[in-house]
Amino acid sequence: MDERQPGSPRHLSADEFRRAGYAVIDWLADYHERVADLPVMPRVAPGDVRAALPPAPPVTGESFAAILADVERLIVPGLMHWQSPNFFGYFPANTSPPSILGDLVSAGLGVQGMLWQTSPSCTELETHVLDWLADMLGLPARFKSHGRGGGVIQDSASSATLCALLAARERASGYHAREQGNPGDLVAYCSSETHSSLEKAMSIAGLGRARLRKVATDARRAMDVDALEEAMRADAARGLRPFFVCATVGTTSTLAVDPVGAIGRVAAAHGAWLHVDAAMAGSAALCPEFRYLNDGLERADSYCFNPHKWLLTNFDCDCFYVADREPLLAALTVLPEYLRNAASETGEAIDYRDWQIPLGRRFRALKLWFVIRSYGVRALQDFVRHHVALASELESWIAADDRFELVVPRSLNLVCFARRAAGADDRALLDRLNADGHLFMSHTVIDGRFCLRLCVGQTHTTREHVEAAWQRIRAAGASLP
Amino acid sequence: MDERQPGSPRHLSADEFRRAGYAVIDWLADYHERVADLPVMPRVAPGDVRAALPPAPPVTGESFAAILADVERLIVPGLMHWQSPNFFGYFPANTSPPSILGDLVSAGLGVQGMLWQTSPSCTELETHVLDWLADMLGLPARFKSHGRGGGVIQDSASSATLCALLAARERASGYHAREQGNPGDLVAYCSSETHSSLEKAMSIAGLGRARLRKVATDARRAMDVDALEEAMRADAARGLRPFFVCATVGTTSTLAVDPVGAIGRVAAAHGAWLHVDAAMAGSAALCPEFRYLNDGLERADSYCFNPHKWLLTNFDCDCFYVADREPLLAALTVLPEYLRNAASETGEAIDYRDWQIPLGRRFRALKLWFVIRSYGVRALQDFVRHHVALASELESWIAADDRFELVVPRSLNLVCFARRAAGADDRALLDRLNADGHLFMSHTVIDGRFCLRLCVGQTHTTREHVEAAWQRIRAAGASLP
Repeated sequence: MDERQPGSPRHLSADEFRRAGYAVIDWLADYHERVADLPVMPRVAPGDVRAALPPAPPVTGESFAAILADVERLIVPGLMHWQSPNFFGYFPANTSPPSILGDLVSAGLGVQGMLWQTSPSCTELETHVLDWLADMLGLPARFKSHGRGGGVIQDSASSATLCALLAARERASGYHAREQGNPGDLVAYCSSETHSSLEKAMSIAGLGRARLRKVATDARRAMDVDALEEAMRADAARGLRPFFVCATVGTTSTLAVDPVGAIGRVAAAHGAWLHVDAAMAGSAALCPEFRYLNDGLERADSYCFNPHKWLLTNFDCDCFYVADREPLLAALTVLPEYLRNAASETGEAIDYRDWQIPLGRRFRALKLWFVIRSYGVRALQDFVRHHVALASELESWIAADDRFELVVPRSLNLVCFARRAAGADDRALLDRLNADGHLFMSHTVIDGRFCLRLCVGQTHTTREHVEAAWQRIRAAGASLP
Repeated sequence: MDERQPGSPRHLSADEFRRAGYAVIDWLADYHERVADLPVMPRVAPGDVRAALPPAPPVTGESFAAILADVERLIVPGLMHWQSPNFFGYFPANTSPPSILGDLVSAGLGVQGMLWQTSPSCTELETHVLDWLADMLGLPARFKSHGRGGGVIQDSASSATLCALLAARERASGYHAREQGNPGDLVAYCSSETHSSLEKAMSIAGLGRARLRKVATDARRAMDVDALEEAMRADAARGLRPFFVCATVGTTSTLAVDPVGAIGRVAAAHGAWLHVDAAMAGSAALCPEFRYLNDGLERADSYCFNPHKWLLTNFDCDCFYVADREPLLAALTVLPEYLRNAASETGEAIDYRDWQIPLGRRFRALKLWFVIRSYGVRALQDFVRHHVALASELESWIAADDRFELVVPRSLNLVCFARRAAGADDRALLDRLNADGHLFMSHTVIDGRFCLRLCVGQTHTTREHVEAAWQRIRAAGASLP
């Protein structure tokens, strides 16, 4: 890397890269050792970070040491520390040493996986690891690559849901939508608890959010199948065509699990596509005791879950499976001359650009492969179990405290709770706790009631972190109206 | 990182992470030193890579050393080496030491940038660096963030084009499309040379490819503005509504440059959105002598270019700018309860999830910041200039050789050429050259003629690599019919 050619700029030499690389590795090792002590939520106001940055880029290069020092000085104070063991907000985005290093190998190799030909290893490792995961989770065999189905890595469950919607539309249109645009009669269904990405997908697809029916949920906040059936029947009676149903295994708000099998039967009666979004909860199916999460999945046309949430793999890594790849390919394939190649034309190679929205793609299977191999299946099961056990313990503490109550029963690693007192301002409680910096939680609203929402899922979260969080919550809860 | 808690799996300790991290850094440094000597195109058939992988994942963890050894043994032989200085195919995906390390910091921090609140530094550094780049390239000031416009990092130009199309549709529909779906009368325009991602975007958006007019190009393969005007007029006369025009600065096939200013005048007459796709060529505007590439850009509603192609920043990193962010936000915003927060509600913070298809997002601004600071503006200009000079030299060699000819004039760093002889089978020539492994090129078809397409853009490509490639092309060309 160190030759200077006339006219070419100087690049870091191999030795300089080594030294700079070691420095980054050391800095990250230190960061992970001290992240538990940093305020989880940063104490900055909009504009603060930019105000410290120079208005113009440098004309001549700066030393790598200066840049890394500025990460510490300018960037870290403005971060939410998602890798802190005291991060309990939203969903986890847990990562791990092998995942970080797998992503580093990917960045260093810098290959493109858009076609099989543009890096066969990138495509084949992805197909292989997604087949492994299907077995690890006990997914139906038809999601594996040997038949008509198969898996692909998407950036997020949002994109997976969009791709599922597009495949469903293509099939429902008799494979005319890609060319002729949307049929006018399509209607999609989800529950009032389904992730907002489906609304966004309906907008993107040009179907419009008004054609998305959000059916009611039952007491467990799972989709009410009778309500679904009734909504589909009513639409069909009006001359509309139910074409897509999204079921959720682990809703964003409370981790409720929709009755996939029953939903699948209703969807099938209308010939509608069934997509199952198991973004966070899906990882729990690693453990036999949680494999009930897959009930009914044999009826699904597509399925996704996110190793970048709860499987030690850093963002982005959503695993998206289809039972039949033809509708997906029909929706997303375009073949310009400059991408034609012999491998694609034989039909023996998978070209993953036809399985996703963008054309280019990184080598994301590496980090998944590193994680699965480095931990092994058993440790990954233990990882999930440990978090569920911690959440269960928290649940018991809340149940035993007469100031607090569970608003819904705990589901897996998620606990939603609130103070019992009628006038309690839990929004103020949450703001106080988060501003304090020792932990971060987010919230949800259940039947109009503001609730604290604590999700146990970070890589290094242990009993002591959950217990310390609970003591802080109790103390703050006692001191605030 | 090394505490073992009951029930929690063992993670690599900080020291183990350091050692494994150094090993990856060393391995990558070695890889980049030897990549010039590896066959650029791998010698594998579909299925070969998978056949060497175990059918089931390991039950217990394996050592990091074993995993890294398998990268070398099982993965590298099946890679196309995009970072080889002998890679001249498609477009470059050049990367650099600071970019690789910036991405490593991003992976290690593992933060989410979906909202300002979920990591303010992630959002603000992105806005800041995109403003820097607008200045570095001499883009119109209205693309900068201080007014109504602003920039955002997308994964690819495909996604940027889709977002532009969705914003245009939202504006054209009177802000009803997100809710009510596509109006029935919209028509979009591009040229026959526009990237296939626009066709794909028309399908995704449910408008249908049949509503995309591919207007003719002139002798330089740039969009024929009279043909565009005529097509728009004809559609309007039929009661359709021209709402979107995509101009390209540097087409995929030949790097032709559409007349953006003239196209913008025609688009404006119909109230249509003008998107400019400068995916690769855009980086050349760093140099004053190539800034003609921005001519007419003051008429554009949106613009994108890819630092992950020709600006030393590894994939994915497309910079997408809008002159007015309102239509984009209108198209892509959804606000579920669990994402509500004070910073967003003040309107002072940017929430980039509303500027893109997915919800989650990585901290991609870090690698761009690292690259710009590590090289400085002047070295980045030299980098682009050097490649253009090499392509220019290759052009002169081809022009001086009576067996070969340029099929179209060189544009920047791209040379399209073929053998002069009427019966010459240049497809066989390309296959021979690529199979040989000493270089990789791709092809295009120009007016029915198969052409070799050599793009100079890899980080370490120097005169000797281009000259060696040319000698091999000449020799193979002489030995084949």
